[in-house]
Amino acid sequence: MKDFWYYVPTRINFGPSCFQYLIDTVKQWGTKPLIVYGGGSIKKNGAYDAVVSRLIEAKIPFEEMGGVQPNPRLESVLEGNKIVKEKKCDILLPIGGASSIDCAKSIAATAYYDGDPWDMITKKVPVGKVLPIIAVPTLAAAGSEMSTSSVITKMDTNEKAGYSSPDMRPRAAFLNPEFTFTQPKGQTAAGVADAISHVMESYFSNVPSAYLQAKFGEALFNTLFHYGKIVYDDPTNYEGRANIMWACCWAINGLVVKGNPVGWSMHKLEHELSAFYDVTHGVGLAIIMPAWLTYCLTEDNAYRYLGYLKAAFEIDPVGMDKMEAAHLAIEKTKDYFASLGLPARLRDIGIEKDMLPVMAHNASIVGKDYFKNAFRVLDENSALEIYKLAY
Amino acid sequence: MKDFWYYVPTRINFGPSCFQYLIDTVKQWGTKPLIVYGGGSIKKNGAYDAVVSRLIEAKIPFEEMGGVQPNPRLESVLEGNKIVKEKKCDILLPIGGASSIDCAKSIAATAYYDGDPWDMITKKVPVGKVLPIIAVPTLAAAGSEMSTSSVITKMDTNEKAGYSSPDMRPRAAFLNPEFTFTQPKGQTAAGVADAISHVMESYFSNVPSAYLQAKFGEALFNTLFHYGKIVYDDPTNYEGRANIMWACCWAINGLVVKGNPVGWSMHKLEHELSAFYDVTHGVGLAIIMPAWLTYCLTEDNAYRYLGYLKAAFEIDPVGMDKMEAAHLAIEKTKDYFASLGLPARLRDIGIEKDMLPVMAHNASIVGKDYFKNAFRVLDENSALEIYKLAY
Repeated sequence: MKDFWYYVPTRINFGPSCFQYLIDTVKQWGTKPLIVYGGGSIKKNGAYDAVVSRLIEAKIPFEEMGGVQPNPRLESVLEGNKIVKEKKCDILLPIGGASSIDCAKSIAATAYYDGDPWDMITKKVPVGKVLPIIAVPTLAAAGSEMSTSSVITKMDTNEKAGYSSPDMRPRAAFLNPEFTFTQPKGQTAAGVADAISHVMESYFSNVPSAYLQAKFGEALFNTLFHYGKIVYDDPTNYEGRANIMWACCWAINGLVVKGNPVGWSMHKLEHELSAFYDVTHGVGLAIIMPAWLTYCLTEDNAYRYLGYLKAAFEIDPVGMDKMEAAHLAIEKTKDYFASLGLPARLRDIGIEKDMLPVMAHNASIVGKDYFKNAFRVLDENSALEIYKLAY
Repeated sequence: MKDFWYYVPTRINFGPSCFQYLIDTVKQWGTKPLIVYGGGSIKKNGAYDAVVSRLIEAKIPFEEMGGVQPNPRLESVLEGNKIVKEKKCDILLPIGGASSIDCAKSIAATAYYDGDPWDMITKKVPVGKVLPIIAVPTLAAAGSEMSTSSVITKMDTNEKAGYSSPDMRPRAAFLNPEFTFTQPKGQTAAGVADAISHVMESYFSNVPSAYLQAKFGEALFNTLFHYGKIVYDDPTNYEGRANIMWACCWAINGLVVKGNPVGWSMHKLEHELSAFYDVTHGVGLAIIMPAWLTYCLTEDNAYRYLGYLKAAFEIDPVGMDKMEAAHLAIEKTKDYFASLGLPARLRDIGIEKDMLPVMAHNASIVGKDYFKNAFRVLDENSALEIYKLAY
């Protein structure tokens, strides 16, 4: 186990009854929230009302900004910055998926930065003062409500950049699994795939001594694969939604990665898809994952695939040839994502073959540090190889 | 899954290099620490020097109080309160096992309470202002460094009382697994048993929908049983010590219990042993656990024993009769604790048979709320039954 620090001070309020603590929490951190949301689903699933009715009752003034898009854009961040300054908001209150939460994090981090926010998002300047954030997630996916990072896309230059800061971690989050009952099937599937990829990036590591972290990863694999199919088939299954929602938080908040440092190479490969084609993040990952697993497999690291096979699919590899068992794990992964209605190949989502070398080149530049610390060290050629396997 | 809140803001600094952050952390929370420790082992294992040399170098004044006993006494709390007030200490810095940390927590909670501290410890008055605590554990056991609770013993009346408050959770903790290399074999075994019991109290629950929590519990069982024997046999095995130390934190910090509320009935049964006979907590628990498991087993709840059998002992119960498999799990538990040199029966540790009804009576009064929410509801008669099974 490597030396590490672990500090996750987000106060989680979980379950349908959680909003009883909302007003006290808002008052603890600010006086005037900016509510940030996306396309309006939060007005149908009850989340908007749960927040706004309580703010009005408590006579807490607030501002609103809707229209945040999936793969949130720099333009939304700039718009939010303007509202925060003009209306003197001192706390961000995103309601929705990771797009709304990531957008709010970047508004909180850049609102009082005098330079170009893109410089901070692309890590050219460090994060300074960050306004407090209270998140109300209504999708189970990226776990942004308990993480320090934000990913923002600049569409005019096909750039997608992620950065993080401890202060960008929400101070509190309110998770009502019932709000995810109306999450569309496609988003449910993509969300489950996203969370699985978060565990996978950490679990497939070369630090075998981070044993507890691997066991926690197996607990998350088991839960995500088990309930992912259940909520896909039965969207109002509370037990399933609750377990998926809570698992999504733990897949990203540091539990499986602290003491077990890894390069997030799969995400760098996927970010190029989203940047060039605006692909849903989890959909891109579901296609990249089996290809990445196939490319990375060696005789030496096959034991990780066996642990994954057992945890995710409850297949005991005892007595099996280890490489056969590893390939079985990959095939099972493909079958599982197919069972969630996710596309299997890059060609199925409109990626042009000619673009693979361009994306491989970009991924190798943007993802340089990630590639060299990955489970299997990658470069431009291996990135292209993985894209081809996924095509 | 039940509604819950989860908030664990302890900043963990883990590994031999962690003390580089000590001074900044102390300065963040106070100006003059009171160092609290036990019998002096911290002066041999390097922990005392790691802290004190840095405080001196940084010219931070501090006070010291040694001599805290296992099952820390009310007298130590009162002594600490006197030092805090007279010397104007504003932060507690316990170094050692859970006894030192629990004692420091109670000093922090009662120092500025004008009434009798025992009233607060026995929950007759609520916890108010608590001084900040930074913990330096040198034993892997109770995980007090990441928990909100403190257990204090009043020897003259044979009372052992536990209480908790969110502010009693240490603000930060510094965990160097190397400090546990010199933990005596008996303490290593008792510490592992204590952590296993913490997972067991939550895992054996009647909330099957808290699935993720159960899977996390299985990850902890697997890690604790696996490495417990390794570090018992090979005390300077860093990988083993690191995994045990980190697992002990997660066994108690809320991960397996939030959303999965349970009564800590085993601990109430053990506390009577410690109160009357000053038994080492983990030793008492190792004897109580198999008896408690035996008493609680029913056809309906046997599935929990099967999950435990698989996680703790890597025995797949597929094809086995469920009650036979459950009894196998109990036998394996006994064998395991015997392999750690722990006594198997109450008679082996000097408990008098005549005292069983007295302890059962006391446990049923002190543990009333715990007994009625337990995995199997207990009362005075069942407490006596369990003590007899353990005798």
